[in-house]
Amino acid sequence: MSKLNVKRPFFMFNPKSYLYGEELLALAKVADEQAQKHPEMSIFVTAPFADLKAISDATEHIIVTAQHMDGIKPGRGMGHVLPESLYAAGARATFLNHAEQPLQLNEIVASVNRAKELGILTVVCADSMAEAKALATLSPDIILCEPTELIGTGQTSDASYIEQTNQAIREVDENILIMQAAGISSASDVYKTIEMGADGTGCTSGITNAESPKQMLIDMIDAAFSAYQAK
Amino acid sequence: MSKLNVKRPFFMFNPKSYLYGEELLALAKVADEQAQKHPEMSIFVTAPFADLKAISDATEHIIVTAQHMDGIKPGRGMGHVLPESLYAAGARATFLNHAEQPLQLNEIVASVNRAKELGILTVVCADSMAEAKALATLSPDIILCEPTELIGTGQTSDASYIEQTNQAIREVDENILIMQAAGISSASDVYKTIEMGADGTGCTSGITNAESPKQMLIDMIDAAFSAYQAK
Amino acid sequence: MSKLNVKRPFFMFNPKSYLYGEELLALAKVADEQAQKHPEMSIFVTAPFADLKAISDATEHIIVTAQHMDGIKPGRGMGHVLPESLYAAGARATFLNHAEQPLQLNEIVASVNRAKELGILTVVCADSMAEAKALATLSPDIILCEPTELIGTGQTSDASYIEQTNQAIREVDENILIMQAAGISSASDVYKTIEMGADGTGCTSGITNAESPKQMLIDMIDAAFSAYQAK
Amino acid sequence: MSKLNVKRPFFMFNPKSYLYGEELLALAKVADEQAQKHPEMSIFVTAPFADLKAISDATEHIIVTAQHMDGIKPGRGMGHVLPESLYAAGARATFLNHAEQPLQLNEIVASVNRAKELGILTVVCADSMAEAKALATLSPDIILCEPTELIGTGQTSDASYIEQTNQAIREVDENILIMQAAGISSASDVYKTIEMGADGTGCTSGITNAESPKQMLIDMIDAAFSAYQAK
Repeated sequence: MSKLNVKRPFFMFNPKSYLYGEELLALAKVADEQAQKHPEMSIFVTAPFADLKAISDATEHIIVTAQHMDGIKPGRGMGHVLPESLYAAGARATFLNHAEQPLQLNEIVASVNRAKELGILTVVCADSMAEAKALATLSPDIILCEPTELIGTGQTSDASYIEQTNQAIREVDENILIMQAAGISSASDVYKTIEMGADGTGCTSGITNAESPKQMLIDMIDAAFSAYQAK
Repeated sequence: MSKLNVKRPFFMFNPKSYLYGEELLALAKVADEQAQKHPEMSIFVTAPFADLKAISDATEHIIVTAQHMDGIKPGRGMGHVLPESLYAAGARATFLNHAEQPLQLNEIVASVNRAKELGILTVVCADSMAEAKALATLSPDIILCEPTELIGTGQTSDASYIEQTNQAIREVDENILIMQAAGISSASDVYKTIEMGADGTGCTSGITNAESPKQMLIDMIDAAFSAYQAK
Repeated sequence: MSKLNVKRPFFMFNPKSYLYGEELLALAKVADEQAQKHPEMSIFVTAPFADLKAISDATEHIIVTAQHMDGIKPGRGMGHVLPESLYAAGARATFLNHAEQPLQLNEIVASVNRAKELGILTVVCADSMAEAKALATLSPDIILCEPTELIGTGQTSDASYIEQTNQAIREVDENILIMQAAGISSASDVYKTIEMGADGTGCTSGITNAESPKQMLIDMIDAAFSAYQAK
Repeated sequence: MSKLNVKRPFFMFNPKSYLYGEELLALAKVADEQAQKHPEMSIFVTAPFADLKAISDATEHIIVTAQHMDGIKPGRGMGHVLPESLYAAGARATFLNHAEQPLQLNEIVASVNRAKELGILTVVCADSMAEAKALATLSPDIILCEPTELIGTGQTSDASYIEQTNQAIREVDENILIMQAAGISSASDVYKTIEMGADGTGCTSGITNAESPKQMLIDMIDAAFSAYQAK
């Protein structure tokens, strides 16, 4: 199957397990409108597994994204996350190896392989430069560089870190897109991160905890767009 | 929230990761018709997480069942299975600690507690008598006794094993229902298992690999019903 | 093989991974002298796996204790902790399911069974009342009740918690000894904990971080002894 | 600290959890004699954690090797394998990510880093070409290429597989030594594997199940030596 093409810049609305059901669906629709408004960008929205189908049915322009996927094939695998089930529900991308769910290396290899077979984009997380380089050899679509020590600090990765990771990853495979998302809590964080050289960025609690999550989501997508245009 | 009441006998169609999407949906509808026909029974149908919503939307009489659930609360928990998301998608029961996904004891405790809060029925798996007794202290709704050595052998648990597990579990908590499902591959296996004293049973590959999965599903549900009536 | 008999009160010096090599060996010898001085008590000393043999060779009166043990039999199991190897190195007890290494329920069952076969005492950890009751059905020798929320707070379990856990566990199996060790940081904490009804207690950083770890170890053992005598 | 230098060819006697205590110690001494006889080679002997100290104390020429090591620092980490404890017990190498204990990528990174700090050699296992390349970016000392599908089949990796893995790994880091050990069950398997281009090889059940484990160990080490000399 043919995969979607990720455009630059991209923005990832990743509400983790903060949102589900109607509330998440409403924000996904907002993201979908923004995706329609900015066809030059790729907008990803993650959702709990059981929410993927409803979001996929109600949207057209976002890339519906799973939070995880197991590298299994149809068969046994009770309790694991079946790639074919995600695809059938409309997911076209998946996170892998997030800091809140670190995976065994053999699982990452298997999941990336299965994603390639099905045409599912992979967003693979690295919490150190060493991890980023190792993961780059697997040629995922996107590597998210998120130094564990910055998660939840409201402190963003600096220009030197971004430049170093870009270089380290592209030395291995220049086609991999690079996402930097540590500490993003405002539209101006988004702007700076794209300006400093990230291909994309994203946000969780900066949006879900905002006074108006909807407005913050719109502002952040606009900021990513403007920052990239300005380059 | 108030939980559903599990009726006796119950039957669990558990296609694991063998089925997903349209094919699974079609069989779930068959199960739903049978559930309507046998209101004295409880019919459970498990599905991959991403399939739960579609099945729940298309059925009325079955108990839509997740293959697993994490004991987390809305918040972080990227990649984990959020109970609220399952409930919002229509799931009203979940498996826990299946032999293909054994859980830490503290995870089982947390998941059972969260299920009770949300009104989600728990089907907790035990692969030995010792596990069954330990799990009984948590008062799940159903304990599935599946001696690991019989899984996939096509050999069912015998009368003495069924009697022993019934007694061991009921000594701890007499309200727990007991499911026996090792090696069920025909309607007559279902009949015998209920006849020998199980409150419910279920099947995976005996249905998904049958010449006509639909007919096998109907026959097994009928067999469970008849066996219980005959007692 | 015949297991050792655990005497009351017991004291557990559990330096976790804070100590190893010569420094740990020196304190283990101090504990051994105290164990000789207090033959009415059982004194346990835990050690990293690779330190067990040297400690066992250099002591006579303490119960040399592993931090964990896998429920495997001689054979494959590369990288896992073989019970026979621990026994051959002189270990006569093992912790299981510590909060820093929570185990799958089936692993706990397997490890407790293997320990019984070899005559190794089991100290199984519970971080909630529900876990304590479930674990009690496995009849380990000692259950350590350590509410996760108190670990590292320097706050000890109160009398009501101790009484409740004692009762809950003894209802299931009255032969299990009960250890309470949350927040123990001084000899007076030890005294109070035994006074309030624990069969034994223990300490990690309260000893390793003390000005004189050796003196603190002696004082705590004395306090446990005196508190039990006073009852 | 300064690490040992691995010589070519090397041989790894890896009895996993098949042996422990006296029986293992006796064979380790045999390996030590062979290591003294072949100073041009490196001979590794793995042991369960609790056996490392006794073997290290009784030998001089072999490289005493742990089956696993966690990437932790002295401190908490109850139940985990502390690098400093292994070093203090005389271990100078460790396996990581063996097929019987696959690790999270972040754990592999942490363990390799800690091993480098302490001067402990790392033998990192890869069960696919993709894993081998990813692991090569971490610059371990040795990569063991063991296609999961061959383990325990008595079938060795063929020349083309060996050549491909050598090339793939050396493209990333030419200093990594490459071990091939799938299906080694006789001295002639050892000879062929070294002849086909492996830097080293090793054996488990081919030795432990041999009529005379001692003689098989000697024969295999001799075969590795001869094969390398003949090149």
